[in-house]
Amino acid sequence: MARAVTPRKEDYSQWYLDIVKNANLASNSAVRGCMVIKPYGFGIWERMQRQLDDMFKETGHQNAYFPLFIPKSFLSKEAAHIEGFAKECAVVTHYRLKNDPNGEGVIVDPDAKLEEELIVRPTSETIIWNTYRDWITSYRDLPLLVNQWANVVRWEMRTRLFLRTAEFLWQEGHTAHATAEEAQEETLKMQEVYATFAEEYMAMPVIRGVKTESERFAGANNTYTIEALMQDGKALQAGTSHNLGQNFAKAFEVKFANKDNQEEYVHATSWGVSTRLIGGLIMTHSDDEGLVLPPKLAPIQVIIVPIPKPNDELDAKAHELMAELKARGVRVSYDNDDKKRTGFKFAESELKGIPVRIGLGKRDLEKGLIEIARRDTKEKSSLPIEGIVDHVVSLLDEIQQNLFDTAVKFREDHSHHVDTMDEFKAILDRDIPGFIYAHWDGTAETEKKIKEMTKATIRCIPNDAKPEEGKCILTGAPSTQRVIFAKAY
Amino acid sequence: MARAVTPRKEDYSQWYLDIVKNANLASNSAVRGCMVIKPYGFGIWERMQRQLDDMFKETGHQNAYFPLFIPKSFLSKEAAHIEGFAKECAVVTHYRLKNDPNGEGVIVDPDAKLEEELIVRPTSETIIWNTYRDWITSYRDLPLLVNQWANVVRWEMRTRLFLRTAEFLWQEGHTAHATAEEAQEETLKMQEVYATFAEEYMAMPVIRGVKTESERFAGANNTYTIEALMQDGKALQAGTSHNLGQNFAKAFEVKFANKDNQEEYVHATSWGVSTRLIGGLIMTHSDDEGLVLPPKLAPIQVIIVPIPKPNDELDAKAHELMAELKARGVRVSYDNDDKKRTGFKFAESELKGIPVRIGLGKRDLEKGLIEIARRDTKEKSSLPIEGIVDHVVSLLDEIQQNLFDTAVKFREDHSHHVDTMDEFKAILDRDIPGFIYAHWDGTAETEKKIKEMTKATIRCIPNDAKPEEGKCILTGAPSTQRVIFAKAY
Repeated sequence: MARAVTPRKEDYSQWYLDIVKNANLASNSAVRGCMVIKPYGFGIWERMQRQLDDMFKETGHQNAYFPLFIPKSFLSKEAAHIEGFAKECAVVTHYRLKNDPNGEGVIVDPDAKLEEELIVRPTSETIIWNTYRDWITSYRDLPLLVNQWANVVRWEMRTRLFLRTAEFLWQEGHTAHATAEEAQEETLKMQEVYATFAEEYMAMPVIRGVKTESERFAGANNTYTIEALMQDGKALQAGTSHNLGQNFAKAFEVKFANKDNQEEYVHATSWGVSTRLIGGLIMTHSDDEGLVLPPKLAPIQVIIVPIPKPNDELDAKAHELMAELKARGVRVSYDNDDKKRTGFKFAESELKGIPVRIGLGKRDLEKGLIEIARRDTKEKSSLPIEGIVDHVVSLLDEIQQNLFDTAVKFREDHSHHVDTMDEFKAILDRDIPGFIYAHWDGTAETEKKIKEMTKATIRCIPNDAKPEEGKCILTGAPSTQRVIFAKAY
Repeated sequence: MARAVTPRKEDYSQWYLDIVKNANLASNSAVRGCMVIKPYGFGIWERMQRQLDDMFKETGHQNAYFPLFIPKSFLSKEAAHIEGFAKECAVVTHYRLKNDPNGEGVIVDPDAKLEEELIVRPTSETIIWNTYRDWITSYRDLPLLVNQWANVVRWEMRTRLFLRTAEFLWQEGHTAHATAEEAQEETLKMQEVYATFAEEYMAMPVIRGVKTESERFAGANNTYTIEALMQDGKALQAGTSHNLGQNFAKAFEVKFANKDNQEEYVHATSWGVSTRLIGGLIMTHSDDEGLVLPPKLAPIQVIIVPIPKPNDELDAKAHELMAELKARGVRVSYDNDDKKRTGFKFAESELKGIPVRIGLGKRDLEKGLIEIARRDTKEKSSLPIEGIVDHVVSLLDEIQQNLFDTAVKFREDHSHHVDTMDEFKAILDRDIPGFIYAHWDGTAETEKKIKEMTKATIRCIPNDAKPEEGKCILTGAPSTQRVIFAKAY
């Protein structure tokens, strides 16, 4: 097999695209900016979905489904919201095609023009809050805790598979509460659900923080985020949870009678993660041999390869092992294709990021041995076949933990405290810049200037930021805590 | 509680809508023809999805995801396909809004017109076969067995919640095969998967059959269907499986090298079921008290109601019972709201179609008794609390079976063999017409005439039709088997 992946040092962007394409995760489609998620990539998404869905249900949420289309006038009802989304939306204007009277094909039928144009949802706050008006009348209808799994469309000009696509898959939670306190509690709870998922399942450490005003969701009072650090030292916003205050309730006139029978506007939150997480997963763990997957999300956790070729004896042993591993809940497969060479199979299992490879060799078996290769550390060991199932099961846990620990160490190695603009720029000039903790005077103006000068943005003010007296790296004005700057996806 | 549901005899359509709305399954939205699926309705869909998805995977299929949008030119590539779908599609023509220079709101930005219009997928054969061209080169890439869960849009003029909506949720399987025989085998296999799902999970008996040419999917060589009979004597097409032959492979130039290294066009199938199934589920089992759900798909299978009110003793007993039932895999909930009267709770549990209701009465408990009410037969019985969990578990199976048996009996009672046009019309004039087995001369012309005269269509030629000499009810021309006519949704 030719080298499947461009090395990171040579061309990081190409390395990423090579993995996405050659590990069969996704491809571009005939429609600009829209991707095809291939079965292997979708298998990862299904596992993410299942786990997140369980976590949403454990925290009291139910799923529902709202329309794909949003009447144009709805988008305009919340002033900040329309500002944020008008510039990149797909607009449906007609509902019929007809034969082209002057040609062979079909054309849009001019007689089938919609009275009001429909927007393909870029996010669903407006259509959902228009619906909640009918669902909520009293405090007894609250809290309303609803989630939707859906596709959304944002007509981005520059797209990159998984990380930024015109259409993407996501979930969007939309909750309604009687008090500001409850809405704030929900906002933070869902940030924590996302952080837990990122760290325990994706093995991707994240910073929990709050966005500055200029980086907030269009229509939110506050946006909480989880931020991860990719291997090229850029940040990835991996999930956000918004406290929407009463903004959408006011825009859509959603009131409830409180316990004293007085009308109040409802308090809202929304929160979402998307197929972008797969981009984050790839860039957190993968290497120059290809994809590296954490066992908890890998569609195939263990692959068994017969060496040098399948035969009756090896097949029998492989099936015995598979049955034992499956009984322990391990997702295992057997690569018994006799047209592929062993070296090709090894390279393929590495490209696909399968956490553990078991080599079943005829001679090894005679000695009661079996070869185990870890994808994460590339260590190989020859082990007694006795007890191998227990070993593999605990090895999967060990790999999950090692991937997380390695990513934490990478982040620590690429987190910097700086106190001057010169230091700040010097870090950003590095090949792998990373997170920069620095003082900021709290103004949008300074934030904008720093962005214009360096392309770095404030990723967040960490939830656990410690009070610390300091001076803004740009203006020297006083500051009471450090914020995190980085270049970002 | 006021009567929640209009009786079927009074107004069948209203009865259906009352159940959909008052059992909180779905509602119309602000967007014409698009529905909101509410949490309780979506809970049913989630169970359907999970079960079908398991069945697809057991038969070797994997999930993937293809774009929402289809370039206009793609739709035209298969001649029959464009005929079938051009008249009812949502067309995206622009990708941006801007502030209205003459007003307050936003308008479509005329400078953001797409070069080629995009169609919101009404079905995905075209975009998928355009993709498969890149995925398939050799017989070793076949069969390709892929399924997608997605939303689709067909701009229907007359819509009805679940049964016919502009946007609906569905799954669409798209498979590619090396031979015509394999494609045919897959087509029939998936028809059987659908039939099994309908009968074993929905408790909805179906006829397995093949469509006549005029009722085929646009672009198929053959369409296999499962047809169910609703309580108003109309048929519901509940799922279809299409043998697409080489039509889409030819339209999109998808060839493979066979074992002799010769190029051949690929053979295709596609198959789908949608949220329409929920409409079928409602109309198969429900009654004038509300929804009736088969236990296998009910979001809540058992509800416990404290009588007359919750108290510490009843709460403790309820939680004990819940724990035992949950341990047996039963979905159970406890209605301990002390603001609602018992009668209201009973009516509500009937409206929502919860299969089993357990009444926990203070006095009964003292005697060691418990009240069990079945939703399907409305029977109530007082049973010893000893062994009640076993009883409930087997009762759920019994209810599942009873619903199926009742639906089979209803269909038998409303299936008719007729040999003349007069008999045919007389059956169709009944309040509940049903399935009519009659001879037909095999021509599209006769089929069309009968439809114009009576509104009845040929639902299918049953897979298991017995050879029988006869004469077409309209033309008297010879026929060798009966086909099934009915009025249909």
